[in-house]
Amino acid sequence: MSSIFRFLFVLVLAITSLGSLVQPQTAPPARLVSPEVHPDQSVTFRFRAPNAQGVLLGLEGTKPVPMEKDDQGVWSLTTAPLESDYYGYSFIADGVGLIDPLNPLLKPNLISTQSMVHVPGPASLPWEVNDVSHGVLHHHFYKSGVVGDERDFYVYTPPGYNPRAKPRYPVLYLLHGFSDDASGWTAVGRANVIIDNLIAQGKVKPMLVVMPLGYGAPEIVAGGFGGFRDDALRQRNFDRFTQALLSEVIPQVESAYRVIANRNSRAIAGLSMGGAESLLTGLNHLDQFAWVGSFSSGGLQPDFSAQFPSLDAGANQRLRALWVACGVDDGLIGPNRKFREWLKSKGIDHADIETPGVHSWMVWRRNLANFSQLLFR
Amino acid sequence: MSSIFRFLFVLVLAITSLGSLVQPQTAPPARLVSPEVHPDQSVTFRFRAPNAQGVLLGLEGTKPVPMEKDDQGVWSLTTAPLESDYYGYSFIADGVGLIDPLNPLLKPNLISTQSMVHVPGPASLPWEVNDVSHGVLHHHFYKSGVVGDERDFYVYTPPGYNPRAKPRYPVLYLLHGFSDDASGWTAVGRANVIIDNLIAQGKVKPMLVVMPLGYGAPEIVAGGFGGFRDDALRQRNFDRFTQALLSEVIPQVESAYRVIANRNSRAIAGLSMGGAESLLTGLNHLDQFAWVGSFSSGGLQPDFSAQFPSLDAGANQRLRALWVACGVDDGLIGPNRKFREWLKSKGIDHADIETPGVHSWMVWRRNLANFSQLLFR
Repeated sequence: MSSIFRFLFVLVLAITSLGSLVQPQTAPPARLVSPEVHPDQSVTFRFRAPNAQGVLLGLEGTKPVPMEKDDQGVWSLTTAPLESDYYGYSFIADGVGLIDPLNPLLKPNLISTQSMVHVPGPASLPWEVNDVSHGVLHHHFYKSGVVGDERDFYVYTPPGYNPRAKPRYPVLYLLHGFSDDASGWTAVGRANVIIDNLIAQGKVKPMLVVMPLGYGAPEIVAGGFGGFRDDALRQRNFDRFTQALLSEVIPQVESAYRVIANRNSRAIAGLSMGGAESLLTGLNHLDQFAWVGSFSSGGLQPDFSAQFPSLDAGANQRLRALWVACGVDDGLIGPNRKFREWLKSKGIDHADIETPGVHSWMVWRRNLANFSQLLFR
Repeated sequence: MSSIFRFLFVLVLAITSLGSLVQPQTAPPARLVSPEVHPDQSVTFRFRAPNAQGVLLGLEGTKPVPMEKDDQGVWSLTTAPLESDYYGYSFIADGVGLIDPLNPLLKPNLISTQSMVHVPGPASLPWEVNDVSHGVLHHHFYKSGVVGDERDFYVYTPPGYNPRAKPRYPVLYLLHGFSDDASGWTAVGRANVIIDNLIAQGKVKPMLVVMPLGYGAPEIVAGGFGGFRDDALRQRNFDRFTQALLSEVIPQVESAYRVIANRNSRAIAGLSMGGAESLLTGLNHLDQFAWVGSFSSGGLQPDFSAQFPSLDAGANQRLRALWVACGVDDGLIGPNRKFREWLKSKGIDHADIETPGVHSWMVWRRNLANFSQLLFR
């Protein structure tokens, strides 16, 4: 899409320039384009807000930066060249975060919807769509007896999956973060594209990926970000999530799909809130999961022994992987280091993963690409 | 969701009022809520834009209306009681259409994303989620040889659909309008909820519904609404759409799903641009489709005999339904009446459907609920 936009922008500029030679007074204004990704991977953002006193660009992974207004009331900013990736962003106009009205690509979120820009990169990047076979995303809806609401989950089936024939596949349960919905890992995290590519390269074993709604207490998200700081509400959210996953989602998946229904073929991983959920659900149910991954986890209570009462070095016989990752510039690196120290103090084998990066999808896409390659081997 | 928001809003108001008795200077401002649906079905919209000179509410089905600003810089408007439905809306601030930053419910669109508000109604309304079995939405991705891009389509399978067992099902191909994407009929049109409910009530025969991307020439949408007024581009868009549907989408569906692969079990219908596509594809390929529906169609060339060169009264033996609907207050009612007159002049049987309404999803949800009940009987 962005290359089409770029082409049209150049075309419109060309036509407008040509027109201005002939009849400068009546030439229509150039159609505004945003975002515009340049060949050097810098990006120009534009937003018309003639009366705003100040507009900031809030770009994922960096602090908000002031934009500049021209005499047409258009605020703009051109970044330095950016690393190839997908970036969430918003325009913060007089303190209010807004999407880019010129860009149809959205980063859905229950608290604050943003726009998204794709800075394209080489085909070798795992989130770039390549000319390979693509899996299918299945969106399921059901009434939860545990939570009492109507809710949903997504199931990725790999290329070649055939509901009428062998083989059966292992399953990764992949959990989103606080304020995301069940579409987060595909709409933003590009999990289906990443797994498509890595399967095509022979780096990931063909598997199903199940992405459920991650709230056991959905009211936690209705009041904004404050809900997650309420210890009792957060714990209820965790507990009921685990219950809904084990008693509702997994049975539906194992009944509807050709999967291998045992612990060696079940993995659980997630980001931020979903990282904590993966640890709580996985490490407290080793009868169900042999592979556990945590990406920038957030929300565990500080008393780890109370949260994992029966976890000890005996787990080493059962865990095929315990992978605890966090970006070094993430505000959650401290709690994650403490958790890993606690694991070490208990003699529980695990992979300590520290990567560059803050609390962002740029970290989590790479986490998924790396963690998924370890699974089911 | 809206009842949770309403509850939290009342709670926040209550806490804020209580707090103000004790320490009026330091009480935080009430958390802003938008939209707020009242018990009488009126809706209050709120938008903080302290420096905007004017903000209009653009609510689906009506002309934009000015909002009023309070001394906190919050623009608001309370509507008259609204009929139960889903409404798209945007805030037009100093001429720029913006989504509601307080509302996660979006109306996705390739040209102009909007927000959406649900005014709940009785369970008997076909688009309300009921405690019935729900079908599954399958999202497919493929590289199109006809168009040359990576594209997608959605497949709804009804409750009880089992890929490993009989029966086989008929298929409705359901097409979106100009500026929508392939998610339009589910994210906005609620097609899966409507068909779930009508199947549960025994009013609709269990069927698959396939919702492909409706652009044969995707560049038609990259330049805004003007692309659709370019006759040559629009015709190329129509022609390649038909080709991609017949040679790429239908074969994939009939290979992957348990469907009945003959004309009596294939229907095609769509809205606006998709209505024209349904007529062009369906009526020019009666060997493929026996059921054709057009909802508020737009974009046919005025010379109908040139667009449907081999269509005559002989079609009456083959067409099980030809349903041509439009809202009486839709700007497209004129061309639709002309098309129906032409059908009549050719002796081609069809249902003339004129409903209340403008060019909006309120009309098309009802069109789908009514048309789907006729099919495959």
